[in-house]
Amino acid sequence: MFRRRDVRAEFTGEPVDEAVLGRVLAAAHAAPSVGMTQPWDFLLIRDRDTRRQFSDHVRHERDVFAATLEGEEAERFSRIKIDGVMESSLSVVVTYDASRGGRAVLGRHAIADAGLYSVCLAIQNLWLAATAEDLGVGWVSFYREPFLSGLLHIPDGIRPVAWLCLGPVSELREIPDLERHGWRARTPLEEFVHTETW
Amino acid sequence: MFRRRDVRAEFTGEPVDEAVLGRVLAAAHAAPSVGMTQPWDFLLIRDRDTRRQFSDHVRHERDVFAATLEGEEAERFSRIKIDGVMESSLSVVVTYDASRGGRAVLGRHAIADAGLYSVCLAIQNLWLAATAEDLGVGWVSFYREPFLSGLLHIPDGIRPVAWLCLGPVSELREIPDLERHGWRARTPLEEFVHTETW
Repeated sequence: MFRRRDVRAEFTGEPVDEAVLGRVLAAAHAAPSVGMTQPWDFLLIRDRDTRRQFSDHVRHERDVFAATLEGEEAERFSRIKIDGVMESSLSVVVTYDASRGGRAVLGRHAIADAGLYSVCLAIQNLWLAATAEDLGVGWVSFYREPFLSGLLHIPDGIRPVAWLCLGPVSELREIPDLERHGWRARTPLEEFVHTETW
Repeated sequence: MFRRRDVRAEFTGEPVDEAVLGRVLAAAHAAPSVGMTQPWDFLLIRDRDTRRQFSDHVRHERDVFAATLEGEEAERFSRIKIDGVMESSLSVVVTYDASRGGRAVLGRHAIADAGLYSVCLAIQNLWLAATAEDLGVGWVSFYREPFLSGLLHIPDGIRPVAWLCLGPVSELREIPDLERHGWRARTPLEEFVHTETW
C-alpha cells in the first residue's frame, strides 16, 4: 500500500506476463461487491491504434484543463506528465454494469452508487496486486466517458470507470509525482479524523 | 485479498487496539486520490447511543427492502444478517469532500466522480489492512445518506460514503455470507474479461 504509485513516466514498455496478469485480474475479481453483484468488467487493450486514439483524446483534454490555469500554476502543470498510455504496452479499462444482479440487489435499494463503489474496490485490489508483482499502474482520468465508450464499443448502460495503464516499470518513485513537482503536498491523517461526530 | 470478508455475525465486541487502529487508518490514508486531494474523512463512532440510533434506522431500511421481495426470495433474505453495528464496538464512517483541493484539481475536470472513486480506494485499503490485522470489517449499506448526515452532524457538501463496522472477530468465514445463504453465487472472472473492445 505504501509502495504503490500512480505511474506515468516509468513504464518500460515490456509486455505483462500472462500468468501475472491472470493473478492481478483475479485479485480485482476478489473484491467485495454490493449484494455480491460483481458489477465490473475488464477490457484488455493492447492494440496500438486504439491506444493512440485514446492518447490523442487525453492530450486534447489536457489542453482543456491547462487552459483553465494561469501563471505559476500553469507553469507547474506544464512539467507534469499525465499518462503513460503509449509507453506501457497494456491498458485495462474497468467498467460498471448498474443492471447486474437484477432488480433486488441486497444493499443497493438505499444507495444508488453502491455498485459503483464496488468497482472502485476492485480497482484498488488490482492496483495493489500489480504493485506486489512489481508492475506499475497509472490511472488516466483526462478523458470524457462518451468518447471512451465509443472507442471501445461499450454498450449503453455500462459506464467506464477507469483507464489503467499496466506494465513493468524501471522503478516506483518514492515521492508521488504531484508532490515531487510541487503541485500539491500530502496532508497529515490527523486532520481528517473525527471522533463521534463531524 | 482472498481472506477478506464482509463481516456481520462474527464480531466479538472486543475493543480495537489503538495502535492497530492507527495502522488501519494510515493504510486508508495511503490510498491514491485524484490530483492528490485526499478527499476523505474518517469518523470514529464508539458511542452506544449513536450506534443504536443508526442500527434502528438500518432495521427500518431492511424492512423497506424486505417488502419488495416475495416468496422464496423473501424467505432467503429473512435468514441473512445485514449488519453488526451493535455487536462490534467501533464503527468508522468514511465521507467524501468534493470541494477539497479547490477549483483546479488535476484529473477531475472531465470526470466529476473521480474524487468519489478515490474515497472508495481508501476504503479498500482500510478493509485489507484490517484483514491483515485479523480484524473484521462489515460495510453497512442499508441507510439513507441524509439520515446519516443528520445523525453525525456531517455538513452540507460532505457525502457519507460508507458505514464500516470494525473489530475483532471469532473467525473470517471461508464462504461469503450471501453465497452461504444461497442468495447469490460468484461468477467466474472469465465472463467479465474482454479483449480490445467490449
